[in-house]
Amino acid sequence: MPQRAGEVRAVSGTLFGVGTGPGDPELLTLKAVRAIAGADVVAYFAKRGNPSNARAIAAGHFRPGQIEEALDYPVTTEIDRRHGDYKSQIAAFYAEAAERIAAHLEAGRSVAVLSEGDPLFYGSYMHLHLRLAPRFPTEVIPGITAMSGCWSAAGLPLVQGDDILTILPGTLAREDLTQRLCATDGAVIMKLGRNLPKVRAALADAGRLEGTVYVERGTTAGGFSMPLADKTDDTAPYFSLLLVPGWSTRP
Amino acid sequence: MPQRAGEVRAVSGTLFGVGTGPGDPELLTLKAVRAIAGADVVAYFAKRGNPSNARAIAAGHFRPGQIEEALDYPVTTEIDRRHGDYKSQIAAFYAEAAERIAAHLEAGRSVAVLSEGDPLFYGSYMHLHLRLAPRFPTEVIPGITAMSGCWSAAGLPLVQGDDILTILPGTLAREDLTQRLCATDGAVIMKLGRNLPKVRAALADAGRLEGTVYVERGTTAGGFSMPLADKTDDTAPYFSLLLVPGWSTRP
Ligand SMILES: C[S@@+](CC[C@H](N)C(=O)[O-])C[C@H]1O[C@@H](n2cnc3c(N)ncnc32)[C@H](O)[C@@H]1O
Ligand SMILES: C[S@@+](CC[C@H](N)C(=O)[O-])C[C@H]1O[C@@H](n2cnc3c(N)ncnc32)[C@H](O)[C@@H]1O
Repeated sequence: MPQRAGEVRAVSGTLFGVGTGPGDPELLTLKAVRAIAGADVVAYFAKRGNPSNARAIAAGHFRPGQIEEALDYPVTTEIDRRHGDYKSQIAAFYAEAAERIAAHLEAGRSVAVLSEGDPLFYGSYMHLHLRLAPRFPTEVIPGITAMSGCWSAAGLPLVQGDDILTILPGTLAREDLTQRLCATDGAVIMKLGRNLPKVRAALADAGRLEGTVYVERGTTAGGFSMPLADKTDDTAPYFSLLLVPGWSTRP
Repeated sequence: MPQRAGEVRAVSGTLFGVGTGPGDPELLTLKAVRAIAGADVVAYFAKRGNPSNARAIAAGHFRPGQIEEALDYPVTTEIDRRHGDYKSQIAAFYAEAAERIAAHLEAGRSVAVLSEGDPLFYGSYMHLHLRLAPRFPTEVIPGITAMSGCWSAAGLPLVQGDDILTILPGTLAREDLTQRLCATDGAVIMKLGRNLPKVRAALADAGRLEGTVYVERGTTAGGFSMPLADKTDDTAPYFSLLLVPGWSTRP
């Protein structure tokens, strides 16, 4: 309906960035559950053709009649991430996804964007937040991070007291990883995948192989953890990380 | 009752290390709520004479008739943390606290130890975990960390893509802080208190003052965040931290 002069515009809906935690649906917070159940629209990122992991974690709290928005990533596996084509494709994708969400918000519908783990910690939601938070009322609901879920599942105390903790992407160069592992008390290494052989070599160079724990699909039904030293193969799925415990000076 | 020879011993209770999140009771996970409500005993650390913060977050889920164990820290404010007397006093305190919990577990009672934020991330629970997990069935339930609660409350995207995140205690020396701030994308600085003037100087030396956000009592009713550059005084309570956002290479 076109607006008449002097007419009050519809109040826009609120954007919720909702952390779903790392996998176990019981690790949703009370606040996340309320936001998911209360939203007019539930949105989530997914790789085209794959079910969304965040959706699977949260689906038990969807209401009948809720609108779902699946934000399907363009197929980019063949293009290097640092390549200009990749960057412009992915930027166009985020811009388009933001406009799909904006249309709901402008129409007065609240939108819960599901985000694995914590939304503002290496989460795709950040790309929407950047574009939409300046324009619409926004609330971010933190989630249990993958690393917290993993060290809890492994029962591994990570850092204490005056320890320093460094979160490293497995994509760094071997020498860079080694140097940073030498300079920290505890570490978490995310984004393993094909980087595992290199990361393992860096841990060995830094003398930190012993004590390091590998966690795959932490907090999920098929999840497990084991000392990295006992893992004989070098295959690591997307949902895996390494924990390097600190806490050397125990009282 | 004394046991007779050949009699089966009572099955021991399970120890739960339960993360309560940073302050907002709505940030408890479904799993934490069930563990708190279901435990025979609820235990928490506190400074003698002060109410326990973790207890306050979780108390809405206590059952009538549940046993409470307040683990009161010895008064140690006058003793330097690196001093031998402090170390032996605090070690004796943790050993005694562990034995109080062990007595319940041996009698077959389940115990939920409440821990602010996440239990295995700079949490006091770690001292009990170390002593009790080898002896009793143990489950750790992760919690929303203070940093996740704070960057969510501030709506501040922290790290993305191949960023490195460094968690630093404000107790480090100024030069050490400066060097580590220069070598990272994002950072979180915990344990501010009287360290704030030194930390501020280190941030300035590293050219990272701009962009840094101060968060006090994040996620609680009286909580707030502000650019550190706008904070004119140097007082910081125990429940405060600094966020130095990364994510420089936004697609
Ligand atoms: C794009 S980051 C997302 C991080 C998430 N926002 C968080 O708060 O933890 C994806 C990385 O998280 C880690 N990850 C996520 N879920 C995991 C799980 N259940 N078990 C092990 N690692 C996991 C993997 O290292 C993966 O490469
Ligand atoms: C001993 S550590 C406990 C960390 C906790 N286990 C976690 O997972 O975040 C205490 C430090 O956490 C930070 N902190 C805890 N709660 C906070 C809050 N609500 N707002 C700001 N900082 C907080 C402060 O920097 C404080 O010095």
